[in-house]
Amino acid sequence: MKVDGQWRRAIELDGDRQVIVLDQARLPYEVAWMRLAGLADAVRAIRDMHIRGAPLIGATAAYGVALAMRADPSDAGLNAACAALGQTRPTAVNLRWALEAMRARLTAVVPAERCEVAYAAAGKVCDDDVAQCEAIGRHGLAMIRAAAERAGDRPVRVLTHCNAGWLATVDWGTAIAPIYKAHEAGLRVHVWVDETRPRNQGLLTAWELVQHGVPHTVIADNQGGHLMQRGEVDLCIVGTDRTTRNGDVCNKIGTYLKALAAHDNHVPFYAAVPSPSIDWTVGEPHEIPIEERGGDELRYVRGRDASGAATRVEVVPPQSGVANAAFDVTPRRLVTGLITERGVTPATRDGLGALFPEHAAP
Amino acid sequence: MKVDGQWRRAIELDGDRQVIVLDQARLPYEVAWMRLAGLADAVRAIRDMHIRGAPLIGATAAYGVALAMRADPSDAGLNAACAALGQTRPTAVNLRWALEAMRARLTAVVPAERCEVAYAAAGKVCDDDVAQCEAIGRHGLAMIRAAAERAGDRPVRVLTHCNAGWLATVDWGTAIAPIYKAHEAGLRVHVWVDETRPRNQGLLTAWELVQHGVPHTVIADNQGGHLMQRGEVDLCIVGTDRTTRNGDVCNKIGTYLKALAAHDNHVPFYAAVPSPSIDWTVGEPHEIPIEERGGDELRYVRGRDASGAATRVEVVPPQSGVANAAFDVTPRRLVTGLITERGVTPATRDGLGALFPEHAAP
Repeated sequence: MKVDGQWRRAIELDGDRQVIVLDQARLPYEVAWMRLAGLADAVRAIRDMHIRGAPLIGATAAYGVALAMRADPSDAGLNAACAALGQTRPTAVNLRWALEAMRARLTAVVPAERCEVAYAAAGKVCDDDVAQCEAIGRHGLAMIRAAAERAGDRPVRVLTHCNAGWLATVDWGTAIAPIYKAHEAGLRVHVWVDETRPRNQGLLTAWELVQHGVPHTVIADNQGGHLMQRGEVDLCIVGTDRTTRNGDVCNKIGTYLKALAAHDNHVPFYAAVPSPSIDWTVGEPHEIPIEERGGDELRYVRGRDASGAATRVEVVPPQSGVANAAFDVTPRRLVTGLITERGVTPATRDGLGALFPEHAAP
Repeated sequence: MKVDGQWRRAIELDGDRQVIVLDQARLPYEVAWMRLAGLADAVRAIRDMHIRGAPLIGATAAYGVALAMRADPSDAGLNAACAALGQTRPTAVNLRWALEAMRARLTAVVPAERCEVAYAAAGKVCDDDVAQCEAIGRHGLAMIRAAAERAGDRPVRVLTHCNAGWLATVDWGTAIAPIYKAHEAGLRVHVWVDETRPRNQGLLTAWELVQHGVPHTVIADNQGGHLMQRGEVDLCIVGTDRTTRNGDVCNKIGTYLKALAAHDNHVPFYAAVPSPSIDWTVGEPHEIPIEERGGDELRYVRGRDASGAATRVEVVPPQSGVANAAFDVTPRRLVTGLITERGVTPATRDGLGALFPEHAAP
């Protein structure tokens, strides 16, 4: 998608086949691309959230393996790379999925071939992600088009939480892909963007939407329920870090609260779910490990100071304790539907199984 | 309650009968008392949220009338004072209640007596508020005591939103009064403190609890649902800016989302409601005017810079629009009970009418 008017992906290769990613820890106040020269850089980029978003975590992990194979293509090197990358973030299932795919592909070839095969496989992870997101955009567009017919002269108002735009993926995004497709198709859309404390990923969504000229309004996470009560939200679309085979949606902390409000006000609530985000091994919400992150994410807030320079302020006084679970799980009973690359399905085992019969239980 | 170890009220008089309030726009980073020398200062203090919280707004408005009577006790002066103060904040019904009480008392006496009568009446508004809050604390204590018996060795975990502590009142607070009473009674309590974006009034609650040594943890507004899903909240207690005669609770934006989560997880959800916060003229949620405040409250976040100085950073880039409704209404069906100064009642017309028969409809 566009950055300062140029089409880019959130993860790219340079001429030396080092990996280039947009540093999301500095957005929206600074636009800076960072270079991942080796495995350690890839681990740090994922763990410290220079890149984030389940699909992009998977893509970066795949290229992390490729960078590692360049330095040490032995079995030991492959094992060490997968172990180091696998420990960076516990919740996004795409991470595990990408590492398993890379490991399966690379153990099948001799070490001397692994570097080339790894780059090709990582490239395919990225291309597949783009294709999945683009397909999610097409399926979601149909939904927004239907809402636009009901909306008449006013825009379709979509509420989203966190960032599930192209910055969370390789391109297009998941939850935001339908919005980009609708905007390109000339439909009027307006996005309510949850700030998404503590890390304010909503500002990444706002930054994306500014770059593409999509109308939007940033709101405190507390606002969405009131807007739904007042009839000012036509539908909610969120992303996911992991969705169970039964359709429970693990996503950024606070998603569950919006799903409750949507349910209470008869607002359709959708999750955009590329298939690598589905964990077919997990059936119930409590089986998903929830990452507890450092308290400084809540204690400090980033922004610009009076001179316009990016900085941070300490918001929570040190005498008070803080807690910071990064995700919650929205039970399937609150989810209207899942938008996958193969179409939209109810959030049920049967629905997902019908779209992905190769994964359905016998 | 305590400030730096000394017992103070949130609003006091100095030797010259000017009004002294704790400047809540500077807390928790600076503890500064500000002097209200006349009507204009009182209007500014309420409108610009140097003081906030429905009961304290009522008390400050009452003293604002007294300050005005000192300068001009004529009918015109009284009308102008009530008009100016009445326009400062639209949602808290205590403001209207206090102004009507002051006007009724003052129109009954000749202008020459109004200054003395006004100070006495404002003092009574404050003393009544303290008595109401203290009674709410006692009634809520019984509830926490019962929860403590169920909790056994672990603390009773109470979630609260915004600040309904003593800073929101003259003393004791509303939602936090039962917690102070429980802490004084030697019960183990732990408070989950919602940050309460955009103005972060949760940090005022945290500051109060630090001053009194009550264990607590600050959380993002997004966290509460997850904590309730995990069984880590025993009860929720919030304040109110206006409660309908049928028991619908208007309170700080985001309260509704927590009430939904409490309902979904069978966690009792209480509002602490001193009788001046009940609007007997209003029966349904949509009748309550919801204040839309300036977008800068969301765009900027206050905190300390690296040198420890209080400052603010611009968080939302100027290219993005913002919206900032200050309150929402939690429908009575989600409220387990209302804690009033006369006892705890279901959130129903009959329940409130039984406790306050003088207001009940014929």
